[in-house]
Amino acid sequence: MSIGDFSVAGRLADTGEGITGDELQLAARNHGMPLEGLRYDVTPPGLHYVLVHYDIPATAAGDWRLTVGGRVEEPLSFGLTELRAMGRRTIRVTLECAGNGRATLQPRPISQPWLSEAVGTAEWTGVLLADLLRLAGLREDAVDVVFTGADHGVERGVEQDYQRGLSVAEAIESGTIVAWEMNGAPLPPQHGYPLRLVVPGWYGMASVKWLRSIEVIDHEFDGYQNKVAYVLRKTPDDPGRPVTRIEPRALLIPPGFPDFMSRHRFVAAGTVPLFGRAWSGWAPIERVEVSTDAGVNWHEAKLDAPSNDELAWRAFAYDWEATPGEHVLTVRAYDTSGREQPIEAEWNRGGFSNNTAQRITVLVT
Amino acid sequence: MSIGDFSVAGRLADTGEGITGDELQLAARNHGMPLEGLRYDVTPPGLHYVLVHYDIPATAAGDWRLTVGGRVEEPLSFGLTELRAMGRRTIRVTLECAGNGRATLQPRPISQPWLSEAVGTAEWTGVLLADLLRLAGLREDAVDVVFTGADHGVERGVEQDYQRGLSVAEAIESGTIVAWEMNGAPLPPQHGYPLRLVVPGWYGMASVKWLRSIEVIDHEFDGYQNKVAYVLRKTPDDPGRPVTRIEPRALLIPPGFPDFMSRHRFVAAGTVPLFGRAWSGWAPIERVEVSTDAGVNWHEAKLDAPSNDELAWRAFAYDWEATPGEHVLTVRAYDTSGREQPIEAEWNRGGFSNNTAQRITVLVT
Repeated sequence: MSIGDFSVAGRLADTGEGITGDELQLAARNHGMPLEGLRYDVTPPGLHYVLVHYDIPATAAGDWRLTVGGRVEEPLSFGLTELRAMGRRTIRVTLECAGNGRATLQPRPISQPWLSEAVGTAEWTGVLLADLLRLAGLREDAVDVVFTGADHGVERGVEQDYQRGLSVAEAIESGTIVAWEMNGAPLPPQHGYPLRLVVPGWYGMASVKWLRSIEVIDHEFDGYQNKVAYVLRKTPDDPGRPVTRIEPRALLIPPGFPDFMSRHRFVAAGTVPLFGRAWSGWAPIERVEVSTDAGVNWHEAKLDAPSNDELAWRAFAYDWEATPGEHVLTVRAYDTSGREQPIEAEWNRGGFSNNTAQRITVLVT
Repeated sequence: MSIGDFSVAGRLADTGEGITGDELQLAARNHGMPLEGLRYDVTPPGLHYVLVHYDIPATAAGDWRLTVGGRVEEPLSFGLTELRAMGRRTIRVTLECAGNGRATLQPRPISQPWLSEAVGTAEWTGVLLADLLRLAGLREDAVDVVFTGADHGVERGVEQDYQRGLSVAEAIESGTIVAWEMNGAPLPPQHGYPLRLVVPGWYGMASVKWLRSIEVIDHEFDGYQNKVAYVLRKTPDDPGRPVTRIEPRALLIPPGFPDFMSRHRFVAAGTVPLFGRAWSGWAPIERVEVSTDAGVNWHEAKLDAPSNDELAWRAFAYDWEATPGEHVLTVRAYDTSGREQPIEAEWNRGGFSNNTAQRITVLVT
């Protein structure tokens, strides 16, 4: 027997096939942000979504080294203390898993089975990646920057350290930081202790955790996570398009109170204040619409002031005059780049970037 | 339509029925501790398991009141500041969800679908419940103490605030505390901010979160969570036995590295240090046995020194001489009360107290 016997190709669920044991193993390890967590401007760390491809590695800050090498004038190596001396910048960032919404797709791609809660907003503190690259000095032939984490595992038969690449332009212009703090405290183990990348506006797969190496290369990075895993494909042999920035999405805090098992919601008739958050990795949110009749009529929500960090989520509110009976709430976001959240997003084999509008069924009593 | 249409009786999965959408909704909200989290003596808050029956309530420490009333000489009411003035005690406690292991049962009870990771150990700081009861003065007819949280919802048609009862003797002798800190920081929202009960040795359902009321009553508490939900039953009309203290369990950190999707493990041949933790809510752990051949031969693991808090988990280690091929690791715990962890626990309809021994399949290369 070999690794390939236990690490197989991706597949789609059969019609009517329940969530598999493999999917459940991932759902039991990783977790979303319960949607009432939308009430916090900054998500408390244990409520922020977590996706770990392999295991959370055993790491220590004391002897941690981050190397910057490849197509640079001067290769560098930093301990935590040296890195902290390079500067200190705090940014508020909304991160979302690229697979958020996957388990609601038909047919369902078999992987981490997110519903709609794989999101969170934190204040990350670190040093600008651009400053590190400037210090090392990019050579003229620099094309991509490759980030390697300390987490090691296998995916579809390929043994690997978790690695992602960004173009030099994106690495510099995105405002990416190498962070050692989350919400003013050292990174929790599951969020990359002691050091991680945070790429504002991009789905979470770009923000490499347990970061130990930054390497500049003179060609396009063709690693597994860029070229095989996070790609939007309609068919297995579709070359596809890479998953990059976060598509616009709005989510409401489900109003009223739930049934434990079905999570169905119950609320008393009258004015029900609805509250939620909206975000996009492409541009600031400029409008959110709410429907309380399953999308027949739409009403503009009242937006809070935007955050100083323009790609962090933005709060919105809408007062619903709830009448007895069953109602379906739905909501959609628009950003200033002209992108609008669809009622139903296009399907793809990996179940990525699925920003289909949230639907909440509520019984008003 | 009424609440009862959406909040129905519990059921068992059909033969071969995959994890349902309802179960997935719970798995996406609640989370276990990835088993590599066993490496930490004290579990970082975001890695500690969380189970929330309804929603995490919106709470504020500033105006929080905890009342102590019912069959007492003098009803009391505390704000956080007054409560802190009552004393400060820190205890290390291993908490486990009563439903841990549920999703591995055949047939599978439909509820929160835990595999084996619904556990965590924290240092909780607060005041002894016994001191609060002494101050209020128990009347002679006091029988049970009822704890009410701020979380509100419906279960199997019963609308309720989350409530649990303990006998007066258990409330005093168990060393239960009313806690406002977890690992030296204010409680995270999902762990009961600003105030919760921590009942050492008992499954997590006893440790009421968002605690707002303690009421002493003159009869046995017959609330939903004590008499309907957390009961060990073989059949629906079995009166059953209440779920109480944590049964002994040992868990290993899965060695080597995983496949992303199957979580199958791979390790290189040679000496593989195995490490894990064992606990019991009944008595201290006195022995842990490891098998590397699916339970044919058992070897005594080396136990670390016990914790000062004797019901907190205890670390163990065993050096495995791993040879190429597929191997099944399994492990079991023994406590000083004479309880031993079974290879396969008895089935019950709620899927509670399932301490069936862990099995990890590893490919040695």
